[in-house]
Amino acid sequence: MAAEIVNPRSESKTGDTGNEGSAEPLDSFDPAFALHRGGKMAVQATVPVRDKDDLSLAYTPGVAKVCSAIAEQPELVHDYTWKSSVVAVVTDGTAVLGLGDIGPEASLPVMEGKAILFKQFGGVDAVPIALNCTDVDEIVETVVRLAPSFGGVNLEDISAPRCFEIERKLQERLDIPVFHDDQHGTAVVTLAALRNAARLSGRAVGDLRAVISGAGAAGVAIAKMLVEAGIGDVAVADRKGVVSADRDDLTPVKRDLAGFTNKAGITGSLETALAGADVFIGVSGGTVPESAVASMAEGAFVFAMANPNPEVHPEVAHKYAAVVATGRSDFPNQINNVLAFPGIFAGALQVRASRITEGMKLAAAEALAAVVGDDLSADYVIPSPFDERVAPAVTAAVAAAARAEGVARR
Amino acid sequence: MAAEIVNPRSESKTGDTGNEGSAEPLDSFDPAFALHRGGKMAVQATVPVRDKDDLSLAYTPGVAKVCSAIAEQPELVHDYTWKSSVVAVVTDGTAVLGLGDIGPEASLPVMEGKAILFKQFGGVDAVPIALNCTDVDEIVETVVRLAPSFGGVNLEDISAPRCFEIERKLQERLDIPVFHDDQHGTAVVTLAALRNAARLSGRAVGDLRAVISGAGAAGVAIAKMLVEAGIGDVAVADRKGVVSADRDDLTPVKRDLAGFTNKAGITGSLETALAGADVFIGVSGGTVPESAVASMAEGAFVFAMANPNPEVHPEVAHKYAAVVATGRSDFPNQINNVLAFPGIFAGALQVRASRITEGMKLAAAEALAAVVGDDLSADYVIPSPFDERVAPAVTAAVAAAARAEGVARR
Repeated sequence: MAAEIVNPRSESKTGDTGNEGSAEPLDSFDPAFALHRGGKMAVQATVPVRDKDDLSLAYTPGVAKVCSAIAEQPELVHDYTWKSSVVAVVTDGTAVLGLGDIGPEASLPVMEGKAILFKQFGGVDAVPIALNCTDVDEIVETVVRLAPSFGGVNLEDISAPRCFEIERKLQERLDIPVFHDDQHGTAVVTLAALRNAARLSGRAVGDLRAVISGAGAAGVAIAKMLVEAGIGDVAVADRKGVVSADRDDLTPVKRDLAGFTNKAGITGSLETALAGADVFIGVSGGTVPESAVASMAEGAFVFAMANPNPEVHPEVAHKYAAVVATGRSDFPNQINNVLAFPGIFAGALQVRASRITEGMKLAAAEALAAVVGDDLSADYVIPSPFDERVAPAVTAAVAAAARAEGVARR
Repeated sequence: MAAEIVNPRSESKTGDTGNEGSAEPLDSFDPAFALHRGGKMAVQATVPVRDKDDLSLAYTPGVAKVCSAIAEQPELVHDYTWKSSVVAVVTDGTAVLGLGDIGPEASLPVMEGKAILFKQFGGVDAVPIALNCTDVDEIVETVVRLAPSFGGVNLEDISAPRCFEIERKLQERLDIPVFHDDQHGTAVVTLAALRNAARLSGRAVGDLRAVISGAGAAGVAIAKMLVEAGIGDVAVADRKGVVSADRDDLTPVKRDLAGFTNKAGITGSLETALAGADVFIGVSGGTVPESAVASMAEGAFVFAMANPNPEVHPEVAHKYAAVVATGRSDFPNQINNVLAFPGIFAGALQVRASRITEGMKLAAAEALAAVVGDDLSADYVIPSPFDERVAPAVTAAVAAAARAEGVARR
């Protein structure tokens, strides 16, 4: 949490414009470009390399016995290299933020951003790996081949439905955590907020009926997690309406979804499903008319998480809902993945977990919700991303859950 | 050159032995293990992430316009990400130091060591990528797929002859520098030392006949580079003797070698070739009898670079040779790759070179040799790895050569 920030490139960011070519004008017009010049991250040595004695320990000849020891006892790689503290942030650039399929190079600013959030909030080293292939099996093979260097794999901004298959195949092939944050990070934070909203209202999650708008990576994962967490019922709507078993246009993932959601058997539009619903969760980027929000049950929870434009404006939602959350930092109750992924990976790496189980994700959501404690209010169902209690709480809960579930290796 | 070393894990390295498992005894017996605990490197943010204003620039929403700009103008990736400052250190673990084929995990301590040398000596960020595949085309495909994230590829400790084909294919496929350091780094430093030895003796390299023991990655690359540099003649010996066109047991690489070396048409043993030779270059790990050294020409140069045991002990070599160099830090004239690769990549990245040409390598050798200047003596034909003038000199020379050869992109 307390990693110090240094900026070895600050000089060129403030002063030098002598040799910067065509991009210089962008910097002078926009602070985001100025900040991004030269990238946002660096590698550093954590051992001294000042003289030949240092070199003889950190490199040849001293390094040879460390290599030999690992060759004899492979598990020592976790003790004597950075493997167990470094995560690959892997993307193919097909679903970057709201920008879509912009390719690997253009995705790098997001991947670097993710990497520095891993470091800043979880103390986890992370390296952006943007791949220039989009075939499921090519991505899987590539990640399997580079996995020896990493303690975990965070999949990022890979489009649905390929993201589901890529994650599943990698989890089958690798003995390190593989976690698609757009799915599970979002689901963990959403569940934490929902638990606290329910606590505030004195309601059990088992009594709640939720409607999710969006059946992509986030929507599918949230639906699974809410069901795992014992929510009363959840219906998921895509652009064609509620995902239900009677539809003949479902992808395999949505057909699976239809099997464990929508106990109420709702068919038709999102608006139809919202009538009388207790919870709205928007991860679609679409819009929801005010009349549909007005038709929800008394004391509803509206999580309109699309960025930058929530499915319904928070001011409108507040006219009808007891609790309103968004994905934006300029409204209360921001559902932000950074509340989850740094601690989840930190906890998994700490105990060298072989995977991230449902139990570990549920434990992360519980721990995150618990940080709010007695300060709970309608405008505070989820902690701030900058609350320093969050990552340690999530880390500890995830590590304990990994041990309890038998996937910890230390 | 002046990168500051911090050690965020120092606490656990000195104090905490509570929960470290089976490896703890290794630490207490050996300072190399103690130093390696937790690895030797970390990632750091170079921009602040202290509050939501920081986050809105470094991550969403600010990052989106940087991504969009790169999507529209792909070359901006070099300006606004760390791509142009980060090198992948790629190995398959098949030829690690003198240890051989120990696999990817066991190679990681060397790759981390390499990475921190890149940073410390060249200011270049580097990331270890140890692959668990050894097939040439699988390695090539994997590196091509992850190349969007990196400004260069340093191939490391990949066994011959696969290393030659892997490098060649990657150079054909990628528009970023691909450099097998075991070949070219060694060759650059060897040539620099040889130039200075010749200068000390008042001889032209065109008048020298050299014999190289070892036809692996280093031997082949040194032979090529000496021929490029205009050496009089060079013969290469493998375990079966001098590589010559009349042999019917040559691999394609050695057949190629036979085509441009050994003008003298020497056949037979290494010892035969050494009789009357001006230069011995050992990169074999074998031994050379004293009688063979004694048979060399008056005022010979003996570079016995095998580690940890030179092909001939420097004290023995000194009885006959004018200049003696080794690969060891405890004798004068250490031929150490760290004199070359950090500056070569720093120079190539500085001008965004699309490749590392022969001219850039020759320029690196010239610049490295020139650092010695007027202090030239038999015990000082090559600078110390810790000479702070080295990397800037090599960097500038390589950048200038890249511009002169038309491979620079800025």
